[in-house]
This record gives sequence, C-alpha cells and structure tokens, in this order.
Amino acid sequence: MTKEELTQILESVRDGDMGIEQAITQIKTEPFRNIGYARLDTQRELRQGIAEVIFGEGKTAAQIEGIARELRKAGQKTVLITRISEEKAAEVSFGEPFTYDKDARIAVVGEIPKPKGSGRIVIATGGTSDYAVAEEAALTAEAFGNQVVRLYDVGVAGVHRLLAHSDVLMEANVIVAIAGMEGALASVIGGLADCPVIAVPTSVGYGASFHGLSALLSMLNSCASGVSVVNIDNGYGAGYLASMINQRTQKTE
Amino acid sequence: MTKEELTQILESVRDGDMGIEQAITQIKTEPFRNIGYARLDTQRELRQGIAEVIFGEGKTAAQIEGIARELRKAGQKTVLITRISEEKAAEVSFGEPFTYDKDARIAVVGEIPKPKGSGRIVIATGGTSDYAVAEEAALTAEAFGNQVVRLYDVGVAGVHRLLAHSDVLMEANVIVAIAGMEGALASVIGGLADCPVIAVPTSVGYGASFHGLSALLSMLNSCASGVSVVNIDNGYGAGYLASMINQRTQKTE
Amino acid sequence: MTKEELTQILESVRDGDMGIEQAITQIKTEPFRNIGYARLDTQRELRQGIAEVIFGEGKTAAQIEGIARELRKAGQKTVLITRISEEKAAEVSFGEPFTYDKDARIAVVGEIPKPKGSGRIVIATGGTSDYAVAEEAALTAEAFGNQVVRLYDVGVAGVHRLLAHSDVLMEANVIVAIAGMEGALASVIGGLADCPVIAVPTSVGYGASFHGLSALLSMLNSCASGVSVVNIDNGYGAGYLASMINQRTQKTE
Amino acid sequence: MTKEELTQILESVRDGDMGIEQAITQIKTEPFRNIGYARLDTQRELRQGIAEVIFGEGKTAAQIEGIARELRKAGQKTVLITRISEEKAAEVSFGEPFTYDKDARIAVVGEIPKPKGSGRIVIATGGTSDYAVAEEAALTAEAFGNQVVRLYDVGVAGVHRLLAHSDVLMEANVIVAIAGMEGALASVIGGLADCPVIAVPTSVGYGASFHGLSALLSMLNSCASGVSVVNIDNGYGAGYLASMINQRTQKTE
Amino acid sequence: MTKEELTQILESVRDGDMGIEQAITQIKTEPFRNIGYARLDTQRELRQGIAEVIFGEGKTAAQIEGIARELRKAGQKTVLITRISEEKAAEVSFGEPFTYDKDARIAVVGEIPKPKGSGRIVIATGGTSDYAVAEEAALTAEAFGNQVVRLYDVGVAGVHRLLAHSDVLMEANVIVAIAGMEGALASVIGGLADCPVIAVPTSVGYGASFHGLSALLSMLNSCASGVSVVNIDNGYGAGYLASMINQRTQKTE
Amino acid sequence: MTKEELTQILESVRDGDMGIEQAITQIKTEPFRNIGYARLDTQRELRQGIAEVIFGEGKTAAQIEGIARELRKAGQKTVLITRISEEKAAEVSFGEPFTYDKDARIAVVGEIPKPKGSGRIVIATGGTSDYAVAEEAALTAEAFGNQVVRLYDVGVAGVHRLLAHSDVLMEANVIVAIAGMEGALASVIGGLADCPVIAVPTSVGYGASFHGLSALLSMLNSCASGVSVVNIDNGYGAGYLASMINQRTQKTE
Amino acid sequence: MTKEELTQILESVRDGDMGIEQAITQIKTEPFRNIGYARLDTQRELRQGIAEVIFGEGKTAAQIEGIARELRKAGQKTVLITRISEEKAAEVSFGEPFTYDKDARIAVVGEIPKPKGSGRIVIATGGTSDYAVAEEAALTAEAFGNQVVRLYDVGVAGVHRLLAHSDVLMEANVIVAIAGMEGALASVIGGLADCPVIAVPTSVGYGASFHGLSALLSMLNSCASGVSVVNIDNGYGAGYLASMINQRTQKTE
Amino acid sequence: MTKEELTQILESVRDGDMGIEQAITQIKTEPFRNIGYARLDTQRELRQGIAEVIFGEGKTAAQIEGIARELRKAGQKTVLITRISEEKAAEVSFGEPFTYDKDARIAVVGEIPKPKGSGRIVIATGGTSDYAVAEEAALTAEAFGNQVVRLYDVGVAGVHRLLAHSDVLMEANVIVAIAGMEGALASVIGGLADCPVIAVPTSVGYGASFHGLSALLSMLNSCASGVSVVNIDNGYGAGYLASMINQRTQKTE
Repeated sequence: MTKEELTQILESVRDGDMGIEQAITQIKTEPFRNIGYARLDTQRELRQGIAEVIFGEGKTAAQIEGIARELRKAGQKTVLITRISEEKAAEVSFGEPFTYDKDARIAVVGEIPKPKGSGRIVIATGGTSDYAVAEEAALTAEAFGNQVVRLYDVGVAGVHRLLAHSDVLMEANVIVAIAGMEGALASVIGGLADCPVIAVPTSVGYGASFHGLSALLSMLNSCASGVSVVNIDNGYGAGYLASMINQRTQKTE
Repeated sequence: MTKEELTQILESVRDGDMGIEQAITQIKTEPFRNIGYARLDTQRELRQGIAEVIFGEGKTAAQIEGIARELRKAGQKTVLITRISEEKAAEVSFGEPFTYDKDARIAVVGEIPKPKGSGRIVIATGGTSDYAVAEEAALTAEAFGNQVVRLYDVGVAGVHRLLAHSDVLMEANVIVAIAGMEGALASVIGGLADCPVIAVPTSVGYGASFHGLSALLSMLNSCASGVSVVNIDNGYGAGYLASMINQRTQKTE
Repeated sequence: MTKEELTQILESVRDGDMGIEQAITQIKTEPFRNIGYARLDTQRELRQGIAEVIFGEGKTAAQIEGIARELRKAGQKTVLITRISEEKAAEVSFGEPFTYDKDARIAVVGEIPKPKGSGRIVIATGGTSDYAVAEEAALTAEAFGNQVVRLYDVGVAGVHRLLAHSDVLMEANVIVAIAGMEGALASVIGGLADCPVIAVPTSVGYGASFHGLSALLSMLNSCASGVSVVNIDNGYGAGYLASMINQRTQKTE
Repeated sequence: MTKEELTQILESVRDGDMGIEQAITQIKTEPFRNIGYARLDTQRELRQGIAEVIFGEGKTAAQIEGIARELRKAGQKTVLITRISEEKAAEVSFGEPFTYDKDARIAVVGEIPKPKGSGRIVIATGGTSDYAVAEEAALTAEAFGNQVVRLYDVGVAGVHRLLAHSDVLMEANVIVAIAGMEGALASVIGGLADCPVIAVPTSVGYGASFHGLSALLSMLNSCASGVSVVNIDNGYGAGYLASMINQRTQKTE
Repeated sequence: MTKEELTQILESVRDGDMGIEQAITQIKTEPFRNIGYARLDTQRELRQGIAEVIFGEGKTAAQIEGIARELRKAGQKTVLITRISEEKAAEVSFGEPFTYDKDARIAVVGEIPKPKGSGRIVIATGGTSDYAVAEEAALTAEAFGNQVVRLYDVGVAGVHRLLAHSDVLMEANVIVAIAGMEGALASVIGGLADCPVIAVPTSVGYGASFHGLSALLSMLNSCASGVSVVNIDNGYGAGYLASMINQRTQKTE
Repeated sequence: MTKEELTQILESVRDGDMGIEQAITQIKTEPFRNIGYARLDTQRELRQGIAEVIFGEGKTAAQIEGIARELRKAGQKTVLITRISEEKAAEVSFGEPFTYDKDARIAVVGEIPKPKGSGRIVIATGGTSDYAVAEEAALTAEAFGNQVVRLYDVGVAGVHRLLAHSDVLMEANVIVAIAGMEGALASVIGGLADCPVIAVPTSVGYGASFHGLSALLSMLNSCASGVSVVNIDNGYGAGYLASMINQRTQKTE
Repeated sequence: MTKEELTQILESVRDGDMGIEQAITQIKTEPFRNIGYARLDTQRELRQGIAEVIFGEGKTAAQIEGIARELRKAGQKTVLITRISEEKAAEVSFGEPFTYDKDARIAVVGEIPKPKGSGRIVIATGGTSDYAVAEEAALTAEAFGNQVVRLYDVGVAGVHRLLAHSDVLMEANVIVAIAGMEGALASVIGGLADCPVIAVPTSVGYGASFHGLSALLSMLNSCASGVSVVNIDNGYGAGYLASMINQRTQKTE
Repeated sequence: MTKEELTQILESVRDGDMGIEQAITQIKTEPFRNIGYARLDTQRELRQGIAEVIFGEGKTAAQIEGIARELRKAGQKTVLITRISEEKAAEVSFGEPFTYDKDARIAVVGEIPKPKGSGRIVIATGGTSDYAVAEEAALTAEAFGNQVVRLYDVGVAGVHRLLAHSDVLMEANVIVAIAGMEGALASVIGGLADCPVIAVPTSVGYGASFHGLSALLSMLNSCASGVSVVNIDNGYGAGYLASMINQRTQKTE
C-alpha cells in the first residue's frame, strides 16, 4: 500500500466518507498482499514489455497454454516457458509467434525483444555437452532484452581457444561461465575478465563428477575474484541474474 | 603492454631508432606479462586510487608490511589486508594511517576512500554470529569506495525484523545476504528485493550445519531469482563482487 | 499380563487347580507377547474407530485388499492405505466407500471421520510441486479425525504470500511445513507461529538439492524454536504426528 | 498492532484528535515491528513468569550479565542462559538466585518455576555420555515450568533396562529420546509409547558415527510413527518443543 | 606345494631321475598356483559335497548353465546361483533338480543338503521389505548345509514382537540381523543374544535412508558387543559367513 | 529369573508358604530386570573368571577405580579397562596386579587368564601405525582367555610379507584384519584364509582417507567371502567378537 | 608466433612495407591463437600416423561419421571412436576397415598400427565385470601403437592368481590396474611391480561401493608408491596416459 | 630367488653337496621372502646409490636416527626422511651431512645425488600456500637423482603467469601440478603440455574446499588427457612417481 493510498483512506475517515470498520478492513486485512502487490506493480512498471516466465516442469501442456494466454492478454509481449519438453511444446497451440528450442527446452511466445542498450552478456561453455544449459541461459537473457554473445567449447584443456577470444571477454558487461567436469572455466575467465562472472556448474561428466558436485565445488573455491555460483544446471537462474546486472549497468547509458 | 607502448616500439623500428633484435626482446620476451600488465594497467586506470588487497593468511607480518609499503610507494592510496590476525596486525608498523578491525580481521593502510556515486550496497546478516564475515564484506566494499548499509541480525526466524527494513532492501543497488545455520535469509531477501543478491553461507551453527554446508546448499537451491552464492565465510569475495556490480551500475550516473 | 491375570494363575496354583508346569508355561513363555498385547489393547481402546494404516508399497493389490477387509470386519470404520499406486488402487474392489487420491497415492476405505475437537492442523507448502507430500499429510490427518487447513504455495521467495495468512498460522494447534529446494519455509513459519511446527523436507528440486538433502539440512538447522523434522517426503509421518499432538491438545477441551 | 489500537487511531483521526501525517506514521512506519510486537506481547502474556532465554555462546560474560539484568528488571522471574561456559558463569555476578550446571552448561537466574499442570516430560538417554545434552533439555523444560522425569542410560543394547520403565513411558505427555552412536533409542521408544517423541541425535561416538550423522539418519528413518527429530546435540530445542507440546496438552486440564 | 611334493622333486634330482631344468620348472613356474591349489584342495576336502557358488549377475544364461554343468560333473552335489534374474533362470535347462526363488533371485542346482549338526542360524528381519535379502542369506546358509530359523518382521518399532522370540535368539549359534531404514535391529538383537550377530543393512527405505547408508552407519555404530557388518543388501555374504561360524562351532559336536 | 526360581515361588504358593501378593511382587515387579539378570547370570556362569569390561572414556579415575574394586569384590578375576588415558591410569591405585598399555590405552586389573583351548586368534595389521588399535583388540581377546598371534605390518603393498605367514593364517580360528588407508588387507587375508575375518578400518592416513572412511568402504566392499566389518578404530569390538567366535568354536574340543 | 614471424613483421615495418597499425593488429590480435596453433602443429608432427580420437557420447552417428571421414582424408591412418553405442556403430558406414567392440564401446576406423618399440603395457582387472573399462583402455593403447598384455580377473581375493603372473608385472613398462568394489588391486600390484601404475576405479559393485567411490578412495590411499589414479570408469584416460608413458620410455630404444 | 640361485641349490643337491632337508629349508622356508628379497635386490641394483625413504610420522627421533644409521651403514648414499617435524629433526644427530627443510618437513642424510640424465621434472603450484607440498615433491625427486624445475604460484586465476612459462612446460619430461581450492591448474597444464601430468590436490582453502576434496574432484574430472591424481597433500608420492617416469624415459638416452 502506497503512502498515497493510505492518505486517501485516512482522509476518507477524517471526512466521514469511510466508516472505521471499513478502514480497518482495507488497512488491516491485506497489509502484506498490498506490499506484495506494490512490489509486483513496481516490477511490472520496470519490466514493461519484458518476458514473464513460466516454469514448465510439473505443469501440463493445458496449464502452460492457459497461463501463457492469460499473460499475453494482460499485455505481455514476450512469455518465456522454461523446462518444457518437446512433447508438451508440440501440444501447446497459439495463433501467434511461438518458437521452441528443444536443446534448451525453452519456448518463447510472442517476440523476442530487441536488446536494450549496448552492453553484452557473454555466455561461455567448457564443452559442447554444456550446450543445453548454455542455451537456457542465453535464451532467457535474450527474452529479457539483452544482447548475448555465445562463446561455446572454450574449455580450459585447450586454454588457447579461450585466450583467442580474450577481447570478447574484456568487453563483456557480465559473463556466464558454464562447465561440467572440473569446472575450471569460471576461474580462468574470472582471471581474464574484469566484470562479474556468474558460474554455472553442469551435471556433464561421469564417475567422480558426482552429477555436477565436482564442478560446483570448483566454482565455489575459485581463486579468482568476482565469481559467484548458481545451482547445478541452472541456466535460467544465470540468465536472469546476468540480465539483472547487465540492465542495471546500462540504465543510464 | 598498452597500445601506446607498442606503437612507440614500432615507430622506433620504423624510424630506425631501435634494432629489430631489441624490438623482439621488448615485445617477445614477456608477451604474457605484457598482457598481464595490460590487464593490470587497465585495472589501475579504472580503479585509480582503489585499494589493492593482500591476503594476510599464510604470510608473516614482515612480508605483509613489505608488500604494503611497496604498494603505497607505487601510489596506492588504500591497501586492504584481509585475514590478518590481531598478533600480526600489532607487529606491522607504519608511519601512516593504519586501522585494524579484529572481528573482521581486516587492516586498512592509508585512507578509506569516500564512496563514489550514490549507489548503496546493503549487507544483511541472519544473526549476530555472522558479524565477522559481514564486516569482512563491508570493510572490503568500503575500501573499494562504496557506500555500505549494514542490516545485521535480521534472520528469518523473526521475519518482521527484515520486513521492517524492506525500504532499505528496495533501494539497494546490490545486496549481500550473509547467514549460517539454515541460510534462508538469501531466499527471503531475494524475494523482497529487485537487485542482485550475493549470498554468503557462514560456518555459524553446529551439528547438522556441517560447518556451513547446510547454509551453502540452501542458498544454491534458493527459489528466488537473482541470487548467486560465494564460498562459505567468503566475506571478502562478496564485498569485492558487490563493489564490482555497484560501480558498474553507477558508472554513468 | 495384567495383575488380575497373574493373580488368577497364582490362585489356581494355590488352590491346586493348576499344575506348576502349566503355570510356568503361562507366566514364562510369553511375558513379552503379553506386554505387547496389552499395549495393542490399550491402543485399540484409545483409538476406537480411528483409521488403521496399511503401507501399500511392496504389497500386492490382493494383499492390501485382504488386510483392509479384515480390519473392516474387526470393526475399523476407516482404513487408510498409503503409497498405493493408481494401478493397484484400481485392482482393489470393495462393496463399500472407497476413495483414492492419485497425487497423494492414498486410498481410504470406509468413511473419513468428522474432525474431533475444534483444533486445527495447518499444512503449508513452499511450492505447488510439494502437493503430493502435502496431501499425504493432510489426508492422513483427516483420516485420523482432524480438521485440516491447507495453505499451499506460500514459499519464502514471496514471503508476503505467507504473511497474508499469518492469522491462520497463529490460530493453528500444530503446523506441518512442507518444502523442497532450500526448505526455508519451516524457519519462517517457526518464527511467525506459536505452536509446534513439523517440518517435512521434500525431494523437489534439482542439482545441489541432492534429492531433498538441502531442505533436510535447512530444517534441522532452523534458527526458530519449536521446529522438528521428519524424513524426506514423509507426509504420512508428519500427518500422524500432527494428529497425535492436535488430539492430545484438545483432549480436555 | 491489535485491532483495538488501530481502531483507536482511526477514531482519533475521525474525531480530529490526530492529524493524518501522525496517523500514517503510527500505522505505516513500523507495520511489521507492530506485528512483531503483537506476537511478542501475546507470547509475554502467554508465558507470564516463564523463562526468557539467552544463548551464551559467542557472547561475553558482561553482555550476558547485561541482558539478564535487563530481563529481570522487565519482570522476568526466570532467565535461562544456555551454552555458557564455566569460566563465563563464574564471571557473572548477581545479587539474586543464580544456579549453574556445568555439564549442561546452563545457568538459571531467578527461581525455577513450579511445574504447571500434572503432565510429564520424560527425558531418556541411550548412555551416560548423552548426559550433557539431556540436562540441557531437562533444565530448559524445567525452567519453562514443566515436570521432568529423567530416564538415563536405557540404551537399546540392553533393551530390558528400557522395558523396566515402560510404565513411565506410557504415562508421559511427551518424550525426548536422546542418543548418539546408532541412535536406535528413538525407534524403540516410539514403538513403546503413545505420545509424541522428540528425537535428539548426539555427537557421542567415534569413527563411523561421523559426529552424530549416524544417529541423525537413524532417527530420521525411524520406522516408528510419532517421532520427529531436532539438530545434533540440540538439547535446548528439544526441551523447548517438549514444553510447547506438554503445556498445550494440559492447557485445559 | 606341500613339503612332501617338494621332497619328491628334490629326491628325483638327487637320484638323477629329474633334470635341473625340469625341477626348476616345477618349483619355480607356479609357486603360487601351487599354493593356490593347495588352498583349493583343502577347501574341497573341507567342503566335500558343499555348494559351489556362481554369481549370476553379469553372466549370460548360457554361461551360467555351462559353469553349473561343469561343477556338477566335477561331483558337486549342490550348485548355488545368486543374483540370477527370473528371465535367465527360465532359460537355464537341466535334466536334474533345479529350484528357483524369485524373491531371493537364487537358484539351486542339485539337492539342498541336510543340515550338518544341530546348531542353528537365526535370520531376523526388521520388516517384510527385507524379505529378498533375508532369503538370499537363508538359502545360501541352507545350501551350505545349515539349519536356518527365520524370524521375519520383528523390527524394533514393536520390540515386543522380537522379545516374544527371545528364546529363539538365545539358542542360536549365530544370528543374521537384516534391516533397512534405521537399522536398529542389530543393536537390540546384539543386546539380547549371546552369540555373534552379523548385521546386514538393506537399501529398504526412502529419503534420508540414502539407499542403505542410514542402516549401515547405525549397524557400524552399534552399542552392543558382538556385532559386525557386511555390505548393504549382501545377503549372500552374511549367509556364507554365518555358515562358516556355525559349522566351525559344531565341528566337534 | 531362572525356571528353578520360578518353580520355587510357585511351589511355595501351592504349599501355602507364600502369599499371592508376595508372589506377585517377586514375579511381577521386575519382569524385565529379572530377564536382564537372567541373561547376566547366564553370562556370568558362562564366563566364570572372565574379564568384565569398563569403558574408561568419559569416566573419572575415581569412578573407574570404584567400579573395578566392586567387580573384583564380586569375584571377577580379571577386569579390563578400555580407552583409559595414561593420566587416569596413573591415578588409579590398587593393592593388586595392575598392568597398563599406553598404546592400546588398556588397563588390566587382576591376572590375564591362561588361554582356554588351543584355538588361535590372529591379529594382523597393515602398518605399524595400526598398532594401538591392534593392541586394543589383542589385549581384549587375551583378557577374555584367548590365545593371540600378532602379525603386524603385513600390509598389501608388500604382499610377500603377508604370504610368508600364510601358514599362520591357515591355522587361525578367526582373524582380525586391521588397516587404515586403502584397507585392502581384509580382502587379501579373506582370500588366503578359511576362517571368519573381522575387518577393522583405522583412521590411519590423511587426505582422501577421510579419517577411516576409505578403509571402511574398502572393507565393506571386500570381494572375499567370510569378511565382516566393525566400526573405525574399534579394536575392542573386534577383540570381543573374535573371542566369542573362537570360544564357541572350541567349546567341545 | 614464432621469432621468425615476428622478425618478418618488424622488418616490414622497418622497410616501410607495413604500416604501424597493421603491424599492431598482427602482433596484438592473436598472440594466443598463434601459440595455440604452434602447439597443435607440434603435436601433429609428433603423432604422425597416430590415432585421432572422437568421443562418441553425445554425438549423432552422422556427426561421428563426418568427423571420422574428414580425419581420414587428412591422412590419419587410425581413428578411434570411444563411448559409441552399438546402435550408432551400426549406422556408421565406411568403405574401409572398421571394427567395433561392443563391450568397450570403441570403434576403430582404419588399421590398428603395429606396436612401436618392445615396451609393454599390462592391463590388469580385479574381476570379469571390469572387462568393458579394461577393453576401453586396451584398445585405446593399441590404437596409439602400443603392445598390450591383458591380465584379467586377478583380483586380490585370490592373490595367487595375480602372483602367478608376477613376471608379467615385473616386465611391464607401465601397468593399468582396473578394479571396482574395494579397489585393492592397485596397491597389491603397486607393491609387486617396479613401474608406474595407473589405477582405474570402476563403478562395479553395489551398496557401499557408492558407484565407484569405494574403489576410488582405496586407490587414492594406496600405501604403495608409484600409483596414481584417474576418474571412475575412465578406461580411455588410462590407456592414453599409459601410451604416453610407454612411448616416452622407449623413445630411444 | 633368482633362477641362478635356484639352479645352484639344485645342482648342489644333484651333486650330493647339499642334503634334501637343507635344500627344502632354503627353497621352502621363505619362498615369499625370497621373492620379496629378489624384488628388493633388483631394486637395490637398479637404484644403486639412490635414496631410501623413512616416513617420519609416528616414529620417534631415536627410531628415525636408528633406521637412518643402519641404512647408511648398508651403503646408502642418501637417506630421505619425510614428514619429520622440526622438533624431531633437531634431536637427530649425525656426524655427516644432514639437511632439513622445515616447510617440506623433509630431512636428507648424506648427499643429494647429481641428477641422472637431462630429463626434467617440472613442479608447478597454483599458489604460494602450496609451497610445503611442492617442496616435499621437489626434494623427493631431487633425492632420487632428478633435475627439478620449480614453477610456483602460477595459478589459473592469472593464466598469463602460467603461459609465460609454456616453454618450460613443453620441455618437461613429466609435470607435477599442485593446487588447492579449485585445483584447475592440472587441467590447464594438461592442455598445454605433452607429457604425463601428476596432479596433487592440496588441503589449501577453506569452506567448500572441504580440506582438499574440491581440488581432488576437479583433478579427477580433468578434461585434459594425460593427467592422473595422487592423494591430497601427497607431495612425496608425486615426487616418487615423477622420478619413476622421468628415469624410465631417459634410461637409454
């Protein structure tokens, strides 16, 4: 509840336009939902035209389609659906732009917005097997209106592949470093670059990779400054955070 | 090696002022140190007057003093020394401003710069026991020229303590959420705020906290978007990253 | 063996109605089975009309049906069958009320009793994915004759959703807090409420949630007082314990 | 903020006794602290004369003494100080009743209240080494006004020791089962008793007990119904929860 | 190689009946195979008529049949095949006694020998879900010529079920205690009985049982003396060891 | 309570020498302590002159001395005190034979009995660092009246050291295999010997030995039959179990 | 960039044949790619005619065939394809030698080269279940031109099987020791042999083998010198490293 | 026992110079010690003048001195003592060259031999904190007669520091890569070099480094070929293996 709204209620009480019980109801019953709404409103204002996100996992195709339609009706230009299987994506039907990436398991309803500002998010992967997670991050960032540079398969076992693109790293606004196995990519990039690095461990690997634990620990112990970590395989989370940092950075550019 | 330096060498060669062998020596012998220096130069240029950092752990008082003196000579206005014990700090002697915080185990040689820009880093902790890690983060951020707001002991077991300060959270440029035990603070803050949240698990707790593992896993699994995690008790890393995000954000403000 | 029974035997011996060997057999052979039976009797007396429970997992449909029929014959008004798959539930045939919930994988034979007393068990979940575990808890509690209030999808990443229902929490006799991922719900509810909170970690999540370990550790390390924890995904155990506390509480109301 | 308080403010506004800005300040500025206070008030009212608790760990003797004095001034009859070392306890000086238990590391300022109601909390331990954790639980429960029955050293390796006291278990209102090593006590008690069992794993043991992990997992996997678990060595938490259940149970007795 | 064999070789050399090269070959080439054979011989002598064992897992039906036939030809009265699936068992064809237990996944070719001696192996389980592992142990022990007493579903959550059979436990020569979940059965039996107890943790359970880890740790930390542990679900190993102890015990009876 | 005792009571009742109430008291009041005593009695009868055991850890010197004196008074020829520090052992004073082994931290009050029977327990260690655990096992077995053969420092990295003693292994009645680091000794011995092998992992090692976890897992996964495992560093448990098996084996020899 | 190349650029600048900006571009833009290429060239020269390797996992049959054809065209005599499923192998079609091993899941296009030098790589396994990993190692080593001796099923539970082949071990240039379960093979071989031992833990086993963790820890803790470890099931890595060591050893033979 | 020795014995028997019993004694009594000795002899022959090694941990200064003196008497030119504390080293007294390195905790009695051959072992560390482990490796390799190149503090967070020395890496015969924290050094070096890389994880780090687990897992999951791993902090093991590979390589150079 904004100060204005509260002022209005109090003025109505003072002026006898509103009974005390009614005022109590308005002030008291949903003090937190109001705060909640306030927050949501702010966000809506902030993100005007930005993608709303639906987590597809654990929802039926019908549910997904229903929510997506409602969001579109409410004026959302872009609706992002993450972790949606190929089968479900095939079932969803829209009379409007709908693109699906089966590797990243991401669908986009509506148009992917043009990037705002000139800042760039670089998304780098250690190997080709990290592709799905990387695309989840990249498509998320693009759906939120960011310019994304893909730098795939630049793992540290051939560090020259990464160094050949050091200029790209130097010019990034924020970098998402995605790697499984030993997860060393984050540290090497953290040492080369001068911007925040979001590390995403992946479950790529076998044996003592323990489904991503190895890469996760590596990244948490990075000896490079400026590196932070999200959950294993959490491409969406990295894309969201990268967008948040990138757009704050260029707010006034 | 900056472009200017390389241009100078090439011009000398063109003009016959420098022999080819000599030029090769200057360009070739330290191609990587050059690159390294170039990166360092950029940073120095970027960070003019910003703190250089010495990790105190595993270094003697003499070594620490030596490095700090050299950095000061090289023109550094502020030298930050992290993880330095009270004993070592007492041994170090300077003829200039020297402050020491025994909780955060941080020493600052020279003056703490005035914050650049109006952006604020909020540092929140779950409990009073997280104080040391929080101060490590806060003093690091301040030494790098940031404005820091401390919001200590706002743990989720009394969520109203946190909500009472929701305006502070809403106005932050970046938030560092520090908590041990169940580490839920990061998620609750992540849900309330609209800026990047850097989560720092601490080793505070006992039994099934497993020296910070519990808080670490909680934070990695945060259901709030915009949250990323650094190593257990890594206050310095969080402060550094928070500074990086905060200063990028206000570059052009 | 009750004192009365033992007196009878001894009197028979004294009066010569029973030989010593026979007496030894009666006293000695099953001292524990007697104790066991006594306990069972007590329980039966205590729970008159209350649901008996069959764990469906690892039993055939025929076995389940057999046990359920026998219990019904023995006078049980309600028989609860937990962890029974949809296939098995379809095979079981009764000429009497039979309801099946495929999410909670719970079947109820007979009628769900009216709640005894006015005390309420609140069952809260962090997300919609915790639904199955929550319904296992809720249906168990209802089958034992409790009034249940469902408060689903009130996870801490949007803490206002939970706070909007703080009155419900304040009026509960006991609360079951169910959450996966970072499992912070238990702590936040523990801080808001003034009654026992039973925390149920769920295996909802991926990556570093390690199949519920993250939520489990969080809940064990809760900084809120009055919180205890059951096994991952153990909705039945939480429902049973909640019923036990709720009914003890209102025994004399 | 209670409804009455809000009504008063609104009436003052209606009647012109309070300006709108002043009303906004009172309603708006600390909506959550108000809620917080409301909760605290309720608790205070509820617990009239009940122990307030100070966690001694990580606080100086001076800080502990200061807080305790303040609480006493505020009318608290009993102040419980947990995890306070013998050294600190010796430093604390009061001109009033002060008792210290060096095993449980608990100090009580003021008088331990007489138990309210006739309900009993049974505190059982597997071995003599669990004594410290058990006393932390027992003294906590006593300081909160509960009648406590101690049943120590009744571990399952000699199950007859436990069975000899099955009547005590049967008459309990709530049981705290404390054990290290294999932690089987909770299951055996859970099978014998008919009331809630709070299981406390302890770090007693060596080798594959992994500092309490073994007992913790055992207790979480208890095949007995009605058992829930708190953190390793968390005697205070178990005592607090036991008190909560015991006093709810006998509210109306 | 026995002393007699070596004496013979040396005498042949001394007497000129064997060339030096030939002697070297006999002494040198297979010193270890000789030792091996000696050991094998001893065992054959020891086990005359005892079951040979084929691990079925990872072998084809044809391979299993081949090995079994060869063993039978070599005079083995009983051939035990463990971990053989129902499908493979159906493919194996013999013109002689062949029995298959699909729960234990054990096949026996030939006849199960009559028990030697009067000593008894008691095999106890915590629940009905431990049946398969228990039967693997029981059938193994029987195939090795032991008398087995089955005591299933006597878990500690209803300790009277176990106590009702304390005479059976007291008269055992060796006990195999099989349990999943909290694995407390081994400790309770270890406290009641006076003979070696072989504990078998099973993977029965869910959540924090972590596929048998909980039961394994419990059993390793047993506070009862005389308990040792084999691998999770290792019914065969327990049956084999129980047979070894039982038959040694009654060697001279 | 023995059958004889019960018969006596019943006969007294039959003959009118004992009133029914008195009989009830004797039979009923301590049914479990009776059972307990019965078990203890049996054991005492069985073990005539055998060592009673006091766990020294967590007991004061005075307590240890007190219990030991009482046991000696009760006729115990040998009292074994395990895990007693050098300091405590020095404080304990007896006017009778008292020996202390500071490596094994074991004290023996009274005389170590002559071995009963000719069966031998072999105690083998992987390295010299396993000495303390090995001596705890050896002295325990000797105090219980067994003949012990020590085979130390025969680790698998020089398997010939072990093979040179294969005759000792072949003649053992039971073998205790003690090893840290990779714990392979148990498997190699299990393959060479034909009697039960009790494996004791030790915490000897560093790094990835994780305080004995490595050896523990190795031993649990032994590919040799006849091997079972006790807790890390549990020399006492192994000595006790070895004695149990050894003495059963030679009962009738 | 070689010294020659840099000299050429500088001479061109000196002679006015190249502008300064152009020189900067050539020197500055790809300093790392040059180094990278140099390394690759060296390798090609070194391995002339040696197998190139394609990781089959995660690639389609078409992709695999495409890469293999290109490599063959480029003159590679042998192309090794690892982790390729039987289905994919069947789809790949070549008009030239193509062999597939379904156990090792390895395909070889072209001819397996004759071993270079007389040095031998011994590949030993603990059991028959380790066959697939062993063949991956063996075929890799053979494809790189090494002589391989297979020593399968020589696990430590029957150490004589291994000792019978001690001459083979003594004559090896490098040994690959492959074992699951307790992984003791590496230590025993390390103690017998005098050359580097590469240990490969396998995921063979169940229960407390934890998918290879048991063998992995064993091997890392080997008390034998000269043993190092690769990832669980990493036959390829062991074969590659063994080849590297073997061929270095015999470079000049 | 060599073939020659056996031939001699047999010839003596044939010629009547040796009785059969005596021959049996020589052949039979220590068949394995002979094998053992044979191996040892071979090694001695091989390593003429090479360091023998004493593990100092767990031995007294007197024991260490005793063994060292005996080895020297037996003709050893160099005796290496690892993991010997400064205190013990001070107690050991020799009338001959004795050097002690307190960081590496290594003592050398006698002279460090001149390197054999021109092959070089490169020892690289990620940070200065890895110094102790690195020196343990380096001094071990030097004591075995190898030429060692130290490349310290070339961690991946500043990859240019490592690249500046890529020529050193390219010319190595074998590289030991030592790193704690994220342990990425091994992968980066593995990608740059063309010789075997022995990775040593160190316990350097804090929090989620879990005492070296993080570096260990990273190194095991290295995506570079030719990398194998030894135990955490095992500098000696790496130095020994590096020497073994280096000296085999240059045998015939």
